[in-house]
Amino acid sequence: MSYRAPTAEILFAMAHAAGPGRGMAGGVYPDLADGAAVAIVEQAARYAEDVLAPLNQPGDKAGARLANGVVSTAPGWADAYGRWIEGGWAGLTAPEEAGGMGLPHLLDSACLEMWTSANMAYMLCPMLSAGAIDALARHGSPDLQRLYLPKIVSGEWSATMNLTEPQAGSDLNALRTRAERNPDGSYRLFGQKIYITYGEHDMTDNIVHLVLARLPDAPAGTRGISLFLVPKFLPSQDGSPGARNDLRCTGLEHKMGINASPTCTMVYGDGGGAVGWLVGEENRGLACMFTMMNNARLGVGLQGVAIGEAATQKAAAFAQERRQGRPPGYAGEGMAPIAAHADVRRMLMTMKSMTAAARAICLMTADAIDRSHREPDAATRQQAGERASLLTPVAKAFGTDVGNEVASLGVQVHGGMGYIEETGAAQYMRDARIAAIYEGTNGIQAIDLVTRKLPLSGGAAVAAEIADMRETLARVGRLDAPAFAAVRGPLAGALDALERATRYMLETLQAAPNDALAGATPYLRLFGLARGGAGLANMALAAHERGEQPQMIALAQFFAQNVCVQADGLAAMVTDGAASVHAAQEAFA
Amino acid sequence: MSYRAPTAEILFAMAHAAGPGRGMAGGVYPDLADGAAVAIVEQAARYAEDVLAPLNQPGDKAGARLANGVVSTAPGWADAYGRWIEGGWAGLTAPEEAGGMGLPHLLDSACLEMWTSANMAYMLCPMLSAGAIDALARHGSPDLQRLYLPKIVSGEWSATMNLTEPQAGSDLNALRTRAERNPDGSYRLFGQKIYITYGEHDMTDNIVHLVLARLPDAPAGTRGISLFLVPKFLPSQDGSPGARNDLRCTGLEHKMGINASPTCTMVYGDGGGAVGWLVGEENRGLACMFTMMNNARLGVGLQGVAIGEAATQKAAAFAQERRQGRPPGYAGEGMAPIAAHADVRRMLMTMKSMTAAARAICLMTADAIDRSHREPDAATRQQAGERASLLTPVAKAFGTDVGNEVASLGVQVHGGMGYIEETGAAQYMRDARIAAIYEGTNGIQAIDLVTRKLPLSGGAAVAAEIADMRETLARVGRLDAPAFAAVRGPLAGALDALERATRYMLETLQAAPNDALAGATPYLRLFGLARGGAGLANMALAAHERGEQPQMIALAQFFAQNVCVQADGLAAMVTDGAASVHAAQEAFA
Repeated sequence: MSYRAPTAEILFAMAHAAGPGRGMAGGVYPDLADGAAVAIVEQAARYAEDVLAPLNQPGDKAGARLANGVVSTAPGWADAYGRWIEGGWAGLTAPEEAGGMGLPHLLDSACLEMWTSANMAYMLCPMLSAGAIDALARHGSPDLQRLYLPKIVSGEWSATMNLTEPQAGSDLNALRTRAERNPDGSYRLFGQKIYITYGEHDMTDNIVHLVLARLPDAPAGTRGISLFLVPKFLPSQDGSPGARNDLRCTGLEHKMGINASPTCTMVYGDGGGAVGWLVGEENRGLACMFTMMNNARLGVGLQGVAIGEAATQKAAAFAQERRQGRPPGYAGEGMAPIAAHADVRRMLMTMKSMTAAARAICLMTADAIDRSHREPDAATRQQAGERASLLTPVAKAFGTDVGNEVASLGVQVHGGMGYIEETGAAQYMRDARIAAIYEGTNGIQAIDLVTRKLPLSGGAAVAAEIADMRETLARVGRLDAPAFAAVRGPLAGALDALERATRYMLETLQAAPNDALAGATPYLRLFGLARGGAGLANMALAAHERGEQPQMIALAQFFAQNVCVQADGLAAMVTDGAASVHAAQEAFA
Repeated sequence: MSYRAPTAEILFAMAHAAGPGRGMAGGVYPDLADGAAVAIVEQAARYAEDVLAPLNQPGDKAGARLANGVVSTAPGWADAYGRWIEGGWAGLTAPEEAGGMGLPHLLDSACLEMWTSANMAYMLCPMLSAGAIDALARHGSPDLQRLYLPKIVSGEWSATMNLTEPQAGSDLNALRTRAERNPDGSYRLFGQKIYITYGEHDMTDNIVHLVLARLPDAPAGTRGISLFLVPKFLPSQDGSPGARNDLRCTGLEHKMGINASPTCTMVYGDGGGAVGWLVGEENRGLACMFTMMNNARLGVGLQGVAIGEAATQKAAAFAQERRQGRPPGYAGEGMAPIAAHADVRRMLMTMKSMTAAARAICLMTADAIDRSHREPDAATRQQAGERASLLTPVAKAFGTDVGNEVASLGVQVHGGMGYIEETGAAQYMRDARIAAIYEGTNGIQAIDLVTRKLPLSGGAAVAAEIADMRETLARVGRLDAPAFAAVRGPLAGALDALERATRYMLETLQAAPNDALAGATPYLRLFGLARGGAGLANMALAAHERGEQPQMIALAQFFAQNVCVQADGLAAMVTDGAASVHAAQEAFA
């Protein structure tokens, strides 16, 4: 089957995942009221289903090709991008003064999920452009904004993010690309960058590279890194692309997945220096880059959700069609659809409930980001900002772990056919795999959560988050319906476990930081289970009250009884596991 | 790095995983005494490291090719197979009267693991031949044995297993390939088989297909299936390959992994009927095929172990070389090896301990198979046979789940480089993925464990297994060393959880079979955690007593504190999760 955008489910999650009175129902989203959200989501769904989805498998097969410095994307790719520009999608969240629509991240997240379900390899290009718009709108000089922003906001030009070098991946201290000052205020860049997504391609007239580099007199380490804008073609003052800049793509990576997305090695300054302009202040480039990274992390979390959704749809459809065996008591004729077998049901429920939980977390994060800008009250904006900071690593890492697990289950549901590339289930698994790695590996996310986010406001941010989950639990406890009774115990257990593990982390961080770090990954998972379980419970409560989306109740129950029950084990790994982790020194001696 | 066979670790596991006085130390393995096991394992290790490992990545890249009905394997493949024949490896476990060495499965499992670590795609060919030797030696007529066994035992001819048809995968009831009787006692076969591993290739003079088919007057369902031997070339009475039989390979699958292993669509009887001979009795073919399947299931479990081992080695070596960041308190110069970071340590320890636990289970299973043949006392043989039956689905499913999880962690440890095919980590992940599917999906294994294996001897087999684990726990409890104190609680918890879940399963199987089936997969996982944890504890105890392989103590502790602690959550999924599983009907309505 081909992907069908689950617009009703997504709109419901936008409205209710964060709990009553939040999400779309709150007063901070006047631009989503009166059916505006529905209209845009429906339009975005058409683009996903009609334009992007048909290109997904052929794109994987054709891949992107490099010949004589020119990268050709897969057949149909450039046309699809033309329709992207026509639709005005590139400017969805861009500031209105730059020609964008200024719509909230909550809505963008919904669209991003659908587009990525339809075609992850394609969506990487617009996602990076969106990050560049953010960075330029906030940190770019008026001149840079005037020349570049309208072109990127319209989609005519795409943008990239150049961080990684062979010796500098997770650790940007080791960055070597250098920038020298020109007398006219511009810079000349020299160096090699790797893993540059859509670093070169044939879909736009120009490509705008945002590049991290060091000035000759920069301090060592990350405090000596600056951000530069380096266009493929140097625009003339009227904005048309002019002379070719001194940069080129020297290779494409041969990857496990997202084959249609060119992953480029970029060389800057081979012929005298690539001309670039400073974005923000000298030596403050990392802060600018993190503007891009943070939203990109949510976007990558949504990739996990997106692949999870697409893989679940494919597996569920297959399980209805494919007939094998007969479960006990099956009353039908001949072989039963495999969806009637309990074990297949377990896989499908795991897939759907995990995906829904990860979606809930991502949408809560988007809502928090929006509120950090839109809430009228400064203190509330500040709280929302901390909430966004706290949830972002969870959205990224839990979302992408879920993407991997769900995509692998999708292969499993298909049996032998899942291993055959023509089926498409394997592509989801291959594509999803990168998302746990890029934009900060999931290990880095866990470290970020534990070392930088738990201490926010002296622990008040995480305490507020747990209090929010407890409020949901209390609402669950007030309902007599059996499904909610089944949710109560496991959800309470998960919150208790999270509270215990959080206390341990806050106590241990200073005294024995390596012990805290040893539990960072299970802690993040535990956070995801609790936050996801509470998010699903919020939606189940809304479903119960409104008589809409009744499947949310079944999903909340399944998740509580089969996923939240893993919380105690995770908490034990956090609080008791550190010594055994450090024993790696002996075990690998 | 390239694969190094961990011979000392494997020999230690052979000797001690099953507990004191079992494994190699027991009296049933005179043929492994006086250093014989060491000598053979070392020789097999050379073949793995020197011949197979260098072909693994090039083979993945080149793949197998079909042109004009001829399948060409990757460059070097046929030469490697020649050395396989020279080494006499094909007859390792084959009966001595057929020219084999008659060595135990315990030893074969050790070799199979190493060869598969080195090159899984290659090893599928010999693994299938070994299954055919088993089936022919037990069920073949004297004539068939005389003509075919020596050639397969020497490795000159290879063999295949033909079960699957497009409409008959997990459910062989739906089999349609038909066989008609010839006047001379032979048969003519007609039909299409899919997913036939090494169904056609260029490494041997002849290929012997074992094919399931129906006779015209056969009863419906699985009681009407017969097994036939259908050679590619019909041998003359002197054994040399003669006329080409009426069968051909019409296509190769394009798969996610094991690309060098040709996965064939085979068509039988297009030109008047493929000549074949009955193996065993008419309509009893499934029983013969299960002779092959059972050992093959252990072999597939070992594939999970093998990929786990190879992926762990590669990740550990990379983590020592790759430098990024500095963990708190790091005293070295510059960036630290990533192996010094707690989160990477957790991944490496998870990889190594999970692999060791799965290896322990597989070797226990092999030992039980050997004892079911070799124990002098009939009642002990019977018990050992039941133990082998009980453990086989766990070895297969837990082993291959571990293979998938460890291979995926291996990609993660490599960061961005893990996603690049040249690194080799991604190939392990792609190759491993099939093992959870073929030879009975892991869901089928879980169903087999719960519905056929738990009831063995009225539950006495599983009770004996749990008692065996409790004995290990008691030995752990008698030691004061801190690592063992850390093992005690989580292992006891896992055994309690397993006992609880087992009781639930035995009580529920008759009354509400679909509820039992809904928990089959978490039950098998729980079984694997407990059995694996106890197996590691056995080895840790032996390491403690003997002062050998000290890393086993660290692995047992890590596994207990980070994996066994998941047992309660799994038990809850088994005992409380059924209703929420069946709610799939509402959630996917």
